[in-house]
Amino acid sequence: MLKVGVVGATGYAGRELIKILLRHPQVKITSVSASGNKIESISDVFPVFRNHLDLICGESDPKAIGRLADFIFLALPHRVSMSFAPQFLELNKKVVDLSADYRLKDKSLYETWYGVKHSSPRLLTAGVYGLSELYRKDIARARLVANPGCYPTSAILGCAPLLKKGLVEADRIIIDAKSGVTGAGRVPARPLQFSEVNENLKAYKINQHQHMPEINQELSRLAKSRIEVTFVPHLVPMNQGMLSTIYFNLKKELVTKDLITLYRNYYKNEPFIRILDEDVFPETGHVLNTNFCDIGIKVTGRKAFVITAIDNLWKGAAAQAVQNMNIMEGFDERAGLL
Amino acid sequence: MLKVGVVGATGYAGRELIKILLRHPQVKITSVSASGNKIESISDVFPVFRNHLDLICGESDPKAIGRLADFIFLALPHRVSMSFAPQFLELNKKVVDLSADYRLKDKSLYETWYGVKHSSPRLLTAGVYGLSELYRKDIARARLVANPGCYPTSAILGCAPLLKKGLVEADRIIIDAKSGVTGAGRVPARPLQFSEVNENLKAYKINQHQHMPEINQELSRLAKSRIEVTFVPHLVPMNQGMLSTIYFNLKKELVTKDLITLYRNYYKNEPFIRILDEDVFPETGHVLNTNFCDIGIKVTGRKAFVITAIDNLWKGAAAQAVQNMNIMEGFDERAGLL
Amino acid sequence: MLKVGVVGATGYAGRELIKILLRHPQVKITSVSASGNKIESISDVFPVFRNHLDLICGESDPKAIGRLADFIFLALPHRVSMSFAPQFLELNKKVVDLSADYRLKDKSLYETWYGVKHSSPRLLTAGVYGLSELYRKDIARARLVANPGCYPTSAILGCAPLLKKGLVEADRIIIDAKSGVTGAGRVPARPLQFSEVNENLKAYKINQHQHMPEINQELSRLAKSRIEVTFVPHLVPMNQGMLSTIYFNLKKELVTKDLITLYRNYYKNEPFIRILDEDVFPETGHVLNTNFCDIGIKVTGRKAFVITAIDNLWKGAAAQAVQNMNIMEGFDERAGLL
Amino acid sequence: MLKVGVVGATGYAGRELIKILLRHPQVKITSVSASGNKIESISDVFPVFRNHLDLICGESDPKAIGRLADFIFLALPHRVSMSFAPQFLELNKKVVDLSADYRLKDKSLYETWYGVKHSSPRLLTAGVYGLSELYRKDIARARLVANPGCYPTSAILGCAPLLKKGLVEADRIIIDAKSGVTGAGRVPARPLQFSEVNENLKAYKINQHQHMPEINQELSRLAKSRIEVTFVPHLVPMNQGMLSTIYFNLKKELVTKDLITLYRNYYKNEPFIRILDEDVFPETGHVLNTNFCDIGIKVTGRKAFVITAIDNLWKGAAAQAVQNMNIMEGFDERAGLL
Repeated sequence: MLKVGVVGATGYAGRELIKILLRHPQVKITSVSASGNKIESISDVFPVFRNHLDLICGESDPKAIGRLADFIFLALPHRVSMSFAPQFLELNKKVVDLSADYRLKDKSLYETWYGVKHSSPRLLTAGVYGLSELYRKDIARARLVANPGCYPTSAILGCAPLLKKGLVEADRIIIDAKSGVTGAGRVPARPLQFSEVNENLKAYKINQHQHMPEINQELSRLAKSRIEVTFVPHLVPMNQGMLSTIYFNLKKELVTKDLITLYRNYYKNEPFIRILDEDVFPETGHVLNTNFCDIGIKVTGRKAFVITAIDNLWKGAAAQAVQNMNIMEGFDERAGLL
Repeated sequence: MLKVGVVGATGYAGRELIKILLRHPQVKITSVSASGNKIESISDVFPVFRNHLDLICGESDPKAIGRLADFIFLALPHRVSMSFAPQFLELNKKVVDLSADYRLKDKSLYETWYGVKHSSPRLLTAGVYGLSELYRKDIARARLVANPGCYPTSAILGCAPLLKKGLVEADRIIIDAKSGVTGAGRVPARPLQFSEVNENLKAYKINQHQHMPEINQELSRLAKSRIEVTFVPHLVPMNQGMLSTIYFNLKKELVTKDLITLYRNYYKNEPFIRILDEDVFPETGHVLNTNFCDIGIKVTGRKAFVITAIDNLWKGAAAQAVQNMNIMEGFDERAGLL
Repeated sequence: MLKVGVVGATGYAGRELIKILLRHPQVKITSVSASGNKIESISDVFPVFRNHLDLICGESDPKAIGRLADFIFLALPHRVSMSFAPQFLELNKKVVDLSADYRLKDKSLYETWYGVKHSSPRLLTAGVYGLSELYRKDIARARLVANPGCYPTSAILGCAPLLKKGLVEADRIIIDAKSGVTGAGRVPARPLQFSEVNENLKAYKINQHQHMPEINQELSRLAKSRIEVTFVPHLVPMNQGMLSTIYFNLKKELVTKDLITLYRNYYKNEPFIRILDEDVFPETGHVLNTNFCDIGIKVTGRKAFVITAIDNLWKGAAAQAVQNMNIMEGFDERAGLL
Repeated sequence: MLKVGVVGATGYAGRELIKILLRHPQVKITSVSASGNKIESISDVFPVFRNHLDLICGESDPKAIGRLADFIFLALPHRVSMSFAPQFLELNKKVVDLSADYRLKDKSLYETWYGVKHSSPRLLTAGVYGLSELYRKDIARARLVANPGCYPTSAILGCAPLLKKGLVEADRIIIDAKSGVTGAGRVPARPLQFSEVNENLKAYKINQHQHMPEINQELSRLAKSRIEVTFVPHLVPMNQGMLSTIYFNLKKELVTKDLITLYRNYYKNEPFIRILDEDVFPETGHVLNTNFCDIGIKVTGRKAFVITAIDNLWKGAAAQAVQNMNIMEGFDERAGLL
């Protein structure tokens, strides 16, 4: 049994990680921790784990954690992860980092968008971007995996086949994304209070969300040219779920079936990508608490529509992190995820 | 036009008060204020009021407010109201206080439940308990009205006819109450975050909610004997609405129709009480954004069930406050409320 | 007092119409009806109206209704309205039709999208498209007003200033719209069951919603050239509210302030359009139960983002219908709507 | 691998059964069926199962199913199950029936509450009431298990220790229960539409819900005397979850700790019962998608409050059915459930 530690266990991604890992047949959670939290059982933080996982959730001390666990999930806020990851790597642990700290290969881009100096820029190149569908081989050899953000996961998976094939006008991609509220984290704030969010709907960070450079980086690699998407995220009154509606202009006339075939070929060996039949479109409820990304496709004339649905906390965070662990450890990629 | 001021305008009761008063044909809102809030337009606090009410929401300075308004609504937290009410009365203003500060006639009870010394105990007797259906005449003459809490409103209106007539075992009344989340106020707190409340349901303050002494005080007056109810409140994932399911033991056998008749007679002149037909029961959605209290009744053997539905922010707070103002000012009691 | 009748009173638009009309100082509801409904009080259909409006909701017989009412709201399904409107006009009544039956000026377009022959095509030209902000003068003289759909209202108001000024590439307008569930009507269907919709999010009718020709018709008129928008609607787990995120390509470089100024000028006399300040964006909760359309604007480079929020049942249906009535009758346009 | 069949697979209990069984290490789903459904893949009925379980969901033909499966779950409506169960037993299959058809030992009681003649009354005594915590030994030997209703599960587990010990006045038990909407099933009906349920709360079937005789039967057995509880169910706007607030009168004075100790002893070997610490109370969110029943307890004077939380579709239906299968088959009782 692989001994795993969850650092930053008191957020929603931490909670889902624990849920998934508890069902995983080849791992044992041996450490949960969260800096600044009062010392208490993780089952006091998340009563869903009572009688199931009653580990003490203590301070996040890498040395102490390193004695207990061999595989580390960092479910920490952006900017905090980078002060932990190097220490765990030093201790010879493998790390999946759920924050944004090692996703952007360009240090200056990170520093612009996250407003701090990067403290371990060398790891930016050593770390692998953990979108299993694109980087499986690299992930298998990696010691540090930068788990993608939820919006980028839903966006990149929806765009990859079209960009790889060069079928669309690369400067005209529009991603209109909608997220459930857990995506905004667990720190109390008035705009996230039930009475403010329920029966309400809004757009935010219009074309300036910090996930944009991550999307652009990956789409540019796929297209082998500089891409800048248009991106507007929205907050939807539901706990979990993310839907991205992506608008493309095709370079030539195609029909819906062409694109469905393209996507099915591109993802033909992927256990967690489901390309829907013509005239069927994804719903977030159909991927809730799963690692699936459902993709629906439609073409009218030169316009192509690709709609992706994921669970922002599962394929968009915790489950994808476990998928990466499975790849890194040579487990069945689906272990614990079906 | 009556010039009214809303003190403590930045909470949910304040917001609904403003909504209702803006539609009231005989009043004009001339002052909105909230201590500690940064000075900004009330329409920045509640964008619903943009282009409709753009008054600056400044500090709650009674002298300044007194120059602008002749009728004052205090939508302040418990314990804070009592430092404002005396000053407005001194300035010869009429006051409806939405907090609990003047509801309990027994000073020591207040001090026990609210944990502070009462700073204007003389006003406890001068103030009138503002349940219009019970104290209309006193309210008409009052200068200070203590607007009832939401739970007490829903509980007392459901119990009054049976207690007044002495038909039930007074020591066996059980009130199982369920509230929407706005009842918990607008101050951010993790248990009130959307992702914690949505798809969740819980009981809290089991038989020790601070609204219990208020219910007991009023039911004891009605019954002319000491009554202590059993009371369990619950938090329901919806914004507004309150349902109280009240369990009685009848002293003698009666049938449903008897009680429906009793309640219809008792409330026959009440514009905001609706006694439902046999086998029809209230739903909070049917009283949403109204001042109505809907009451459904059923008897099986010696057991009587009375179910009341109100909007916790309307009949349970802001609309009832306006109903009281209407009575105090000699307006049509329904003005602005239909 | 103007005597008004609501035909098709048992849907959600009918319910909101009645709510609004009950508060309107210059009208009296004298008839409510709904074909096929069992004869019962409207307050049995919608218990919110108990003790407030207890009219019998009978069959929709134009002759009988014509004896009771002088102004008729048709809140009927598409394809049904056109068999009623001519009869009421014959009886010399004024009519606001909330269905799609008289919105499209091109009969063949109607027949294509709604799949039936139009039975009173002559009225297609006589009727006025009831978007008050665009056709106020024509509405004032009209006897038949075709009240716009909710999606078109939110889309056209968001596009009008830019198209009128010719500032955008007309063939590249993308409207990503999100609606609350009441927009889907009140007829039971599994996809609208609570347990299917709650905690779920989906797109539907991808670029083939029947509201598209209506949007295209009006934008083409504004632009004085043939426009076909790209349009994807989504279903969001909330009762009321609609947010449209509109993506434009500017023909020349502009900054956010330029567009805000343009929109403020264009709508400067409009009582129900609110152009938000820079970096402020609309939320549906801020227009809930109001006739307001809030518009937020952002420009980055050649890309312009316009986000509109309305209440789909108010500005998107019932309240806009009352606004049209106010204009047709020479009432204050805001009467009953603030 | 045990070959299992799910009959009536197209309801919510069926869906959750499949979810749980797919993760169970010792079973394989070999048949899913639903009478009257068009023949389609179960993953077309519930797209969450796409690429995961793509069995055809055909007609419920016991002979055909019997060739494929050795263990049968009947997730059928009340009144329908009893025409299937005898056939499967005849074929020597073991059966867990999730309907009410074999729960009541008293045939006439069944016929009164369900309004039909019972077609296999002999099985009423042969079948075992499948509340694992009370009947584990009988379940282990049973060939037919009548899986309890959701309300009875939450009520009986909350009452059992107190009744067994004879500590409460047996004629004064009040159960105020609140359920999420999936409890009402998947057949479309207006009162279950999103726009009717959301932001709404109501009581229904006041003291006359068909689950009452089931609760009374089991509590009477525990108390060894005739018990009739008072029971009011409520519909809460959330998908899954059930909270029962149970009011007792103690025969003698006790304190909270006494009862917590009593409950902990009573349930000391139970893997799925969690007795909470003093002053901690259950929330349905903490048992969501689990087989746990959380129980919180409080005593004030002679009044005892017991609050139970379950997931109505898991411990209240599908997961409890799997728990029963585990017991019947000699599997680890927790298999597939943690």
